[in-house]
Amino acid sequence: MALHHLLILTRHPDDYRARIEAAGLPDLAIVAASDVADGLARGAHCDLLLGDPTRVKEALPHLSRLVWTQLTWAGVEPMLDPALRRDYVLTNIRGVFGPLMSEYVFGYLLAIERKIVPRLESQRAGRWDATLPGTLQGKTLGLVGVGSIGAHLAATGKHFGMRVHGYTRSSRDCRHVDRYFHGSEKATFARDVDYLVAVLPNTHDTAAIVDAEMFGALPARAVVVNVGRGRTIDEAVLVSALTEGRLAGAVLDVFPEEPLPESSPFWSTPNTYITSHTSAPSFPADIVGVFVENYRRFHRGETLLHRVDFERGY
Amino acid sequence: MALHHLLILTRHPDDYRARIEAAGLPDLAIVAASDVADGLARGAHCDLLLGDPTRVKEALPHLSRLVWTQLTWAGVEPMLDPALRRDYVLTNIRGVFGPLMSEYVFGYLLAIERKIVPRLESQRAGRWDATLPGTLQGKTLGLVGVGSIGAHLAATGKHFGMRVHGYTRSSRDCRHVDRYFHGSEKATFARDVDYLVAVLPNTHDTAAIVDAEMFGALPARAVVVNVGRGRTIDEAVLVSALTEGRLAGAVLDVFPEEPLPESSPFWSTPNTYITSHTSAPSFPADIVGVFVENYRRFHRGETLLHRVDFERGY
Repeated sequence: MALHHLLILTRHPDDYRARIEAAGLPDLAIVAASDVADGLARGAHCDLLLGDPTRVKEALPHLSRLVWTQLTWAGVEPMLDPALRRDYVLTNIRGVFGPLMSEYVFGYLLAIERKIVPRLESQRAGRWDATLPGTLQGKTLGLVGVGSIGAHLAATGKHFGMRVHGYTRSSRDCRHVDRYFHGSEKATFARDVDYLVAVLPNTHDTAAIVDAEMFGALPARAVVVNVGRGRTIDEAVLVSALTEGRLAGAVLDVFPEEPLPESSPFWSTPNTYITSHTSAPSFPADIVGVFVENYRRFHRGETLLHRVDFERGY
Repeated sequence: MALHHLLILTRHPDDYRARIEAAGLPDLAIVAASDVADGLARGAHCDLLLGDPTRVKEALPHLSRLVWTQLTWAGVEPMLDPALRRDYVLTNIRGVFGPLMSEYVFGYLLAIERKIVPRLESQRAGRWDATLPGTLQGKTLGLVGVGSIGAHLAATGKHFGMRVHGYTRSSRDCRHVDRYFHGSEKATFARDVDYLVAVLPNTHDTAAIVDAEMFGALPARAVVVNVGRGRTIDEAVLVSALTEGRLAGAVLDVFPEEPLPESSPFWSTPNTYITSHTSAPSFPADIVGVFVENYRRFHRGETLLHRVDFERGY
């Protein structure tokens, strides 16, 4: 059997290496680095690559034997640059982010309903705050995008007694979604939504899909959450809706430019929670699980899981 | 058929009256008041009473025809005062609080894991906070008390990928609890717990059940949550554990004395969230649902749901 050579290019390369070695994969030699130049100096002969998009993009032109790249992320945009090669199999991480995204989204939804921040402010002022909390029960979760992450959010929404509506291109296969909307039904979809959660990847079809029409139909009590990609929401419309009180708040983990520039209006829009693209961090244990399963398939000559279609963009 | 007379004594009596009238119950006349004296002036002849414990306790001695009282709360302590009559059927609210308690408990657990407050403080300081969040996955939820509320918390814990341990007197019937502990196993139970959640009513068996032995075995990373009753946790031991950093934090919704007195140490213990006994508020829609079902049973001469045993205390 031919020996395969894996180049690991990630932030904690030794952690990944130790976990992969512990899996006892056959016919595999490993080179691991966090610095791309260092990795290439020792691993330019590698046929397999495991890494985050930024490091992978930098290394791609220098790996002449590359046949397969496993990303440690869900997002694949950097790999879609038309100037880059596409003569290899690209797989990303899917499935493991749903539970993490649910923790993020429902952490914020519950913090808002339960008034966690204003109650803490009362407490710090020495005040017994007897205001009643709200509840998610009976409220409507409106998912823009229902892939594997959206499906997990839908299940969590049902667990908390919510109605779940989904706006998708055409899919309607998630059993936790009570009602689907497509195409021109943006306003009908948005009309009853309490929490609009955008979970879309960046493709040419999703740019500013949450637009003036959707915002215009959202009730003023609604909160917008973005855990997909920054460009899927029309930023100018979101900013004015928040500023003018036509929206109750926003929870934003992704932005067109990250880190969020000092000049961004979101630093000062009211009722806005900003986080740093950390809603679903890649934990090595999860990533290595996917890599190990894919390596076994690769080694047996089988189809890999989560293969990216360069044309579709996901 | 004899006409029954219901006296409603609650904070929003007209809301309750309207909801009950909308159910179209047979043979029922209603008097509704928020003020007990006013209610008694118009409704001293009533045989049925619906109200919160404080108002019910005050009205009890004056209702000579009383046969059944439906409380709007789960907590029945005020009714157990041995000086009070027990010559009537007392029913409380159960079952509806599980989902609300789950929102409270998991709102705080997720806020802690997701660092919602420190992130907001970074944001307010104009700082892009790139620290990674924690996760509930793989953590251990330790429930002290697994009744209908504990069972709902257990199900939510499993939804978020937690291990669920339960410390109970003897019950072991919740399928979402991975492992049960009883009696003298306090230290073994506490040893692996990340989030200890006390969900116990006030009885002579539960006083300070979360004691020095249990606190002593909890890891320093653990957070203690109390949504049951204040007296079920040894307050002095909790205060010193928080103050000395032998515990990562506390989320307290119930206290031996409420509102929390100015002199309480919990206003200044570190990493403490105080709320005002609002983890599971009684929403009229839920309460009326229980009353309506129980009235139909009462009217048909059947056994009522959620009957309180004065001797057991719940």
